[in-house]
Amino acid sequence: MAELVGNCLVAQSGGPTAVINASVAGVVAEALNHNCIEEIYGGLNGVLGILNEEFIDLAAESQQQIRSLRSTPGAALGTCRYKLKKQQDFDRVLEVFKAHNIRYFFYCGGNDSQDTADKISKLAQTQGYDLRVIGVPKTIDNDLPVTDHCPGYGSVVKYICATVRELACDNEAMGQNDLVSILEVMGRNAGWIAAGAALAKRRDHPYDPPHLIYLPETPFSTEKFVEDVRRVLKREKYCLVVVGEGLIDKDGNYVATDGAGPDAFGHAQLGGAGDYLAGLVTQHVGVKARTAKLGIAQRAAAHCSSKTDNDEAFLAGQAAVKAAIAGETDKMVVLVRGDTDHYTCETGLAPLSEIANGVKKLPREWINEDGVSMNFQFFRYALPLIQGEVAVPYDNGVPAFARLEKHRVEKLLSPYEV
Amino acid sequence: MAELVGNCLVAQSGGPTAVINASVAGVVAEALNHNCIEEIYGGLNGVLGILNEEFIDLAAESQQQIRSLRSTPGAALGTCRYKLKKQQDFDRVLEVFKAHNIRYFFYCGGNDSQDTADKISKLAQTQGYDLRVIGVPKTIDNDLPVTDHCPGYGSVVKYICATVRELACDNEAMGQNDLVSILEVMGRNAGWIAAGAALAKRRDHPYDPPHLIYLPETPFSTEKFVEDVRRVLKREKYCLVVVGEGLIDKDGNYVATDGAGPDAFGHAQLGGAGDYLAGLVTQHVGVKARTAKLGIAQRAAAHCSSKTDNDEAFLAGQAAVKAAIAGETDKMVVLVRGDTDHYTCETGLAPLSEIANGVKKLPREWINEDGVSMNFQFFRYALPLIQGEVAVPYDNGVPAFARLEKHRVEKLLSPYEV
Repeated sequence: MAELVGNCLVAQSGGPTAVINASVAGVVAEALNHNCIEEIYGGLNGVLGILNEEFIDLAAESQQQIRSLRSTPGAALGTCRYKLKKQQDFDRVLEVFKAHNIRYFFYCGGNDSQDTADKISKLAQTQGYDLRVIGVPKTIDNDLPVTDHCPGYGSVVKYICATVRELACDNEAMGQNDLVSILEVMGRNAGWIAAGAALAKRRDHPYDPPHLIYLPETPFSTEKFVEDVRRVLKREKYCLVVVGEGLIDKDGNYVATDGAGPDAFGHAQLGGAGDYLAGLVTQHVGVKARTAKLGIAQRAAAHCSSKTDNDEAFLAGQAAVKAAIAGETDKMVVLVRGDTDHYTCETGLAPLSEIANGVKKLPREWINEDGVSMNFQFFRYALPLIQGEVAVPYDNGVPAFARLEKHRVEKLLSPYEV
Repeated sequence: MAELVGNCLVAQSGGPTAVINASVAGVVAEALNHNCIEEIYGGLNGVLGILNEEFIDLAAESQQQIRSLRSTPGAALGTCRYKLKKQQDFDRVLEVFKAHNIRYFFYCGGNDSQDTADKISKLAQTQGYDLRVIGVPKTIDNDLPVTDHCPGYGSVVKYICATVRELACDNEAMGQNDLVSILEVMGRNAGWIAAGAALAKRRDHPYDPPHLIYLPETPFSTEKFVEDVRRVLKREKYCLVVVGEGLIDKDGNYVATDGAGPDAFGHAQLGGAGDYLAGLVTQHVGVKARTAKLGIAQRAAAHCSSKTDNDEAFLAGQAAVKAAIAGETDKMVVLVRGDTDHYTCETGLAPLSEIANGVKKLPREWINEDGVSMNFQFFRYALPLIQGEVAVPYDNGVPAFARLEKHRVEKLLSPYEV
């Protein structure tokens, strides 16, 4: 394998997570180890920044800032939901890469982003431009295929579990009022996030909160919901419900949408499942329902993120660089779980085409027959992912996050009409 | 002062906070120091537990559990919103106190609860029953008069500020979309909690998020709101709004209620102010609005609570016992701030009648002229209250909280019809 000398570019795409910046930190830390990588650029706002030649010099950032990235939520390079559609867009990407001698491209993102990375990689091959493209997995939704799990997932679940335990303490205190407390969490097509709330239960305490979990995997029925709530309220002082925003009815339609219409990728904008369930409680059960909707806060909650998740996100960034240096391209880093009972995790690689637009559903056999709780297989899978706490630095009582200097790289081409 | 020998009772009332259990821990820790206090009882579910003679023996709990109380949210003794109305109810309270030789009564709660404590104290005096009643302040609303601030407030504000900083990282990343991000927080009559979100701004960075804060102190106007949002979106990539649930219009009506009707004290049940503002953004500004509603999670967020607040809550519990032992009664512990620039806090006492049903409003002169931001006087007041982090123990990746054994004290009277 001939050494490929040139610059590297890392960019972030799709919805931010608590640990996507840890992956960028991993890319930067590893890239510094390899002399064949000359400049370490960050692309601003995903592919949008590439089209517009908006690059920053990540090697010029202070080491403190790069370290601080490891505990900073959001996407420090900016992200976008812009989808490359026209052939012209792809040609522009290659033109920009050539102008800046980008030979290594690392793209942190979910399904749609890995699809974009795949197309860029294929086009470079067609044009005979030597480019190594490695995807870095990122999504709180945990729905990428092949990889055992996705960086971002463990942290959102840990935060939700902390919230469930705390809500439970509060609800328990107020008990005897037949209170139904509903926590709405994210999750568009799969119930991975809502299912994760089950980890708030102690081992061998099936009646611990959350008492009921509603997943998109199980078509929603008002009759069953009302029955479920009544059953719990007979047994407990309150009923704590976790519901994924992507709840669907038996015809496959979303139970609640916020009416804002689809996003740039044609995905419905969800929200309101919690309020919808609260309405059913008031109407059909006749008791008080209180809702909380963590919204974007859940995917940004670095202050309560998982150290395991954070470490793996960093590792995935490092592994991407190592793979590219070793000559790999058109692949995404995947997380591979060891076979032993003691949880271990290594990285591997999978073709981008296998990842692109694939969706990994929550296995139905991990959901108990009652449809509202998870069995031991899910616990065995997910519990290791939320272990350990990340020490976020505080400044004047509030978490302090990285603020990159963003030294701009000079543009070399004429502007492009996006 | 003759030594008063007998049992002590501590109970909790009203909405739980992240630190109300720290106050109970303070009462227990201090009560153990005084031989004139024979038994240390906890009353379950506030006055309801007193009426029903539902006491537990707190001295029988393990020391670990009492220590663990210091970082446990909710109300470990249970709470209630039951209001003593009939003379018969008050007579029953005294009857129960006499039966169990309760000579020291410590009641942790807000305005309504201190009113109840005041009435119990007055009745005991009228009947010549030697009882020392000391209130322990508790409310996230920070609206008790006389005391400089209230245990519970610093913690809810710290958690909200952490959430604002994290939301900001996420919103910033997604920028360029003219996103309006709305965080709904609690606060029924006063904007103390929403105002606290201002502490997420760095010193001398007035344009830091939250960009707009809407308080019940400022009558809400749709025109001004739309103008405010447009102004921020011209300057920033996104607009982060914090809104208190108790927002009122110029006629003094709540802008948004959840339609659930008033609670036992006749207070409106609020909720939906965030969704209401989101609707206005879509309709009048024409950009996307995303909402998060922390709901009860905000007052239970021990995992992100303020060490200063936690320490003061414990101190207030200790001070209540010391005051009662010293012969004080019919008072509430208040927090007194030192005169120096360096923040210090001591405890004092104020008559319960001064506290009962009083409301401390956020000073209007602490709100900037723009009506949507806070000035240096507010920062000077509130910033010390969110300092320091509480180390919450984690078990299997999730915060671990106290679980009292609740050794029941034998009932001595015939049942009472509540």
